[in-house]
Amino acid sequence: MIITISRQFGSGGRELAKRLAEKLGYNYYDKVILEEVAKESSLDENYIEKVLSSSNPTPYITGCTFSYSMMHRHATDIVFLQQKVMDKLAKKGNAIFVGRGAEVLLKEYNPFRIFVYTTLEKRLSRTLDNLKDGEDSREKTMLKKIKQIDKERIKTCRMLGFEWGKKEHYDLCVSTEKISPKELADVIFDYLQKLIKD
Amino acid sequence: MIITISRQFGSGGRELAKRLAEKLGYNYYDKVILEEVAKESSLDENYIEKVLSSSNPTPYITGCTFSYSMMHRHATDIVFLQQKVMDKLAKKGNAIFVGRGAEVLLKEYNPFRIFVYTTLEKRLSRTLDNLKDGEDSREKTMLKKIKQIDKERIKTCRMLGFEWGKKEHYDLCVSTEKISPKELADVIFDYLQKLIKD
Repeated sequence: MIITISRQFGSGGRELAKRLAEKLGYNYYDKVILEEVAKESSLDENYIEKVLSSSNPTPYITGCTFSYSMMHRHATDIVFLQQKVMDKLAKKGNAIFVGRGAEVLLKEYNPFRIFVYTTLEKRLSRTLDNLKDGEDSREKTMLKKIKQIDKERIKTCRMLGFEWGKKEHYDLCVSTEKISPKELADVIFDYLQKLIKD
Repeated sequence: MIITISRQFGSGGRELAKRLAEKLGYNYYDKVILEEVAKESSLDENYIEKVLSSSNPTPYITGCTFSYSMMHRHATDIVFLQQKVMDKLAKKGNAIFVGRGAEVLLKEYNPFRIFVYTTLEKRLSRTLDNLKDGEDSREKTMLKKIKQIDKERIKTCRMLGFEWGKKEHYDLCVSTEKISPKELADVIFDYLQKLIKD
């Protein structure tokens, strides 16, 4: 069984995904997908992210050398490669994929698709509670970051032909406003047991 | 605890609500709200529905007598009355409210808000399986009915100031595409146990 978990930044979706994978004994893939795409394409991870969240990919500049060959690597090529990478991982068996348009790119596996969200206030307080060393701790900066990441995810999914976070693309949309990711993992675990049984 | 369940017509949301109320031992309110509003306002149920799903309420005509007094009963009055009725019911204790904008009208009770949806194909087959005696069984007619009811619910909620079915207005949005309302009731029952415990 393949499960995809998409989430608003700061919603606790990644924590939920990790806990769920652990409870189920499933493989867990998030950043490793991007790393694999970067390795196979010899492209920089940041560049890949930029191309995927931009409808007009800009040419990549390495140091002072303008890399012409990169101009031909379009977003669609990267999406194709990403799908290939995900497909290879999915074939290894039961897994949870976090983000990266897996809800659509892995469609042929009929995945169970989850979307995690919560209020902006909760997202803000959660991200401020989990600041990395040296990260700007001002509310204003974090709000800007949250909105920026939302915008990028919307754009990336639009490029893949679907609307990020629209409930019709998911089997379950859960808010973490009233329940912790830990408790939610228990609930969804029980839910999935019923699905697997059928 | 107050639970509100909104649902797409044909999604099985009403069945889910009934089962959940039974499992929890909660009061269950759906059509009784409209009946109560009709009784208290001496207005016809169909007229109330029409006013609530129309941004330009039309005057009500009883037989051939044009009822002028009705012209003054505007949608906002009806909403106010509906909220009063719901508030009275909510005060009786633990309950599940189905539809009627309860997710917003009962906001002060901090309700647990559920939205139930599924694919159009599933809704169609579900409604055709549950036809009433003498009801038109043509797919085309049922599809038209589904779309019409969606449209009315969208309009009613817009009048109440919110977007019907937008996940941000709910704590949980669940699709009945892969799981039956019966099994879903078990899952949500467990979920609510965790919430009540906290």
